[in-house]
Amino acid sequence: MNNFEFYNPTRIIFGKGTIAKLSKRVPRKARVMLVYGGGSIKENGIYDQVMDALKKHEVIEFGGVEANPDYATLMKAVKKVRKKKVDFLLAVGGGSVIDGTKFISMASPNEDIEPWDIIARKIAKDLKKVIPFGTVLTLPATGSEFNRNSVISRRETGEKLSFASDRVYPKFSILDPETTYSLPQDQIRNGLVDAFVHIMELYMTYPVDAIVQDRQAEALLMAIMEMAPAVLEMDPPNYDARANYMWVCSNALNHLIGAGVPQDWATHSIGHELTALYGLAHAETLAVVLPWLLWYKREQKRDKLLQYGYRVMDQKMQKYSERIDRTIEATAAFFQSLGMPTTLSSYGVDPDEAAEKVQARFEERDWSLGEHDDITGADAAAILRLSR
Amino acid sequence: MNNFEFYNPTRIIFGKGTIAKLSKRVPRKARVMLVYGGGSIKENGIYDQVMDALKKHEVIEFGGVEANPDYATLMKAVKKVRKKKVDFLLAVGGGSVIDGTKFISMASPNEDIEPWDIIARKIAKDLKKVIPFGTVLTLPATGSEFNRNSVISRRETGEKLSFASDRVYPKFSILDPETTYSLPQDQIRNGLVDAFVHIMELYMTYPVDAIVQDRQAEALLMAIMEMAPAVLEMDPPNYDARANYMWVCSNALNHLIGAGVPQDWATHSIGHELTALYGLAHAETLAVVLPWLLWYKREQKRDKLLQYGYRVMDQKMQKYSERIDRTIEATAAFFQSLGMPTTLSSYGVDPDEAAEKVQARFEERDWSLGEHDDITGADAAAILRLSR
Repeated sequence: MNNFEFYNPTRIIFGKGTIAKLSKRVPRKARVMLVYGGGSIKENGIYDQVMDALKKHEVIEFGGVEANPDYATLMKAVKKVRKKKVDFLLAVGGGSVIDGTKFISMASPNEDIEPWDIIARKIAKDLKKVIPFGTVLTLPATGSEFNRNSVISRRETGEKLSFASDRVYPKFSILDPETTYSLPQDQIRNGLVDAFVHIMELYMTYPVDAIVQDRQAEALLMAIMEMAPAVLEMDPPNYDARANYMWVCSNALNHLIGAGVPQDWATHSIGHELTALYGLAHAETLAVVLPWLLWYKREQKRDKLLQYGYRVMDQKMQKYSERIDRTIEATAAFFQSLGMPTTLSSYGVDPDEAAEKVQARFEERDWSLGEHDDITGADAAAILRLSR
Repeated sequence: MNNFEFYNPTRIIFGKGTIAKLSKRVPRKARVMLVYGGGSIKENGIYDQVMDALKKHEVIEFGGVEANPDYATLMKAVKKVRKKKVDFLLAVGGGSVIDGTKFISMASPNEDIEPWDIIARKIAKDLKKVIPFGTVLTLPATGSEFNRNSVISRRETGEKLSFASDRVYPKFSILDPETTYSLPQDQIRNGLVDAFVHIMELYMTYPVDAIVQDRQAEALLMAIMEMAPAVLEMDPPNYDARANYMWVCSNALNHLIGAGVPQDWATHSIGHELTALYGLAHAETLAVVLPWLLWYKREQKRDKLLQYGYRVMDQKMQKYSERIDRTIEATAAFFQSLGMPTTLSSYGVDPDEAAEKVQARFEERDWSLGEHDDITGADAAAILRLSR
């Protein structure tokens, strides 16, 4: 096991009816800015629940944070925070709204720095001042409600970068499974795939004798497979299944199973390029890349593939090459069982063209990714060519 | 799944050589009180590592905290903290030293209250003032380094009571697996059993559709069974096995797998009585009680016993009564495989006498325990009579 630090001070408030607890969790005399996305919360009753809980608070609104939150939008929020002397932020939404709020939290009080430097120059770790914030999660997937990470896009320059800091853990996150009832089925499917692949990025590398972390990761993978059919029930939605869905997404990326082990993240990096180039949803790119990346790196990931196959995918054949084949197939089959295609051509994308373009983008930035830092542009291209 | 709150702000600093990080984690100008136990840290090099890291700090010592830390001892520490104006505590030891430090942390600055009321009158939740503290764990078992609980004994009156508060989470806990190298094998065995039974108290109740928590609990149980043989290697000790041992004990009782599910704790309560009456080690009492409690409550725990048998103990027979029999036997057999007897008579205790005495003590306090509040003195006696 590798040395590590683990720290996660976010208070999770979980369950039916918990939005009402905002009244006690948001400081009494705070000037609160409510940050949200496209406005669906005004249609599905979540906005009303939030405002009812905050009826004794002073609330300023900032809506319109888009998917892949844009720097320009967030800078408008930063200006509003400074002008209105906001001293508490409340993110109501999914990963994009929460990631955006983390940036607003850090950029607003540090008036003497260039805000983009927080991300581009990685100075987040040096900044002490933040505006505290809480979250009400409405779209489980990214785990942002329970971690210190944020991904921000800058459409102006085509950049998509991340930052992380202990200062941007939410003070609290309210997870009410009923907020998922109004989500369309494809967003729920995307959330399940996103969480599954988060776990795989932290698990499917090489063994470092981390028995605890391996078993914990396998537990979450098996939990997702066990819960998936009931999570996708729409009419009526199944409360306990939605609760498990919400909680597994949070646990996938709260830094616990990633502590003390190597991490991969190449599937995410290749996937981000596919989103940028072809507009595929994030989770769709993951489903398209992961199985073929496993296939391409099957020698280097052999020991973990065999373990994962045996324990998670119930592939127990003693002929190892066969077990690996069936394990990768079972992984793709699981995504397909959710209604998620696993090849580029199913999305109308030509694999050869995608391979060429992604290779160019990797090489432009001189990227080598994966747990061994050895997935170059040429490797990314080879993986995409497999995804026919 | 039941509603829950989860909050755990302790920073875990894990791995070889991490005691040196104390120099940066203990506030520069603090007056530090080093709290420890019987003095073994002065023989095994841990004291030297701690003092070396704190060579620029002002350190006052308080040794002599005993197993099952005694209120009278801790009150001496409280007096010393007040007199010397200590403003940071550092617990170096196992669960008893850390539990004791939690009490010192809370009792010392609250001079206007009767200290015993923190425990006996459960006023811990109302107290805001504490002396902050960190820990260096040297004996993995109780999980106290990663939770908000403390158990204190008062030998003067024969009481053993617990308290809990968000204020007594350690600021940090340093977990260096090499600190376990000097432990005798029976203490390591006890730690493994203690962690296993902690998980069972949170898991082996009745289903509430908590797929995530169930899988996480099963993961930790399987991890303990997988690691145990290597953890018990003494000459030389196995670093990675000790790392897993340390980390699984912390994860067993950090409030995560117990969130949103019913809890039992009857095994612990019956076990505490056996320690008080006959001086058995805590883990020995758990190994003596758990298998027979499962047997006695096999109808009420049927669904979870079947699931645990299938997933953890690899008992897959379709005849359910047989699967439950074999599952309970396998649990006892696992404890025995560690060198831990699972019957009262193996410890020279007469089951009938123990049953009678424990029943009297339960009835004196009008106790009904377990996840259904239905384990009375008569039930505890019946369980102990099975443990022949």
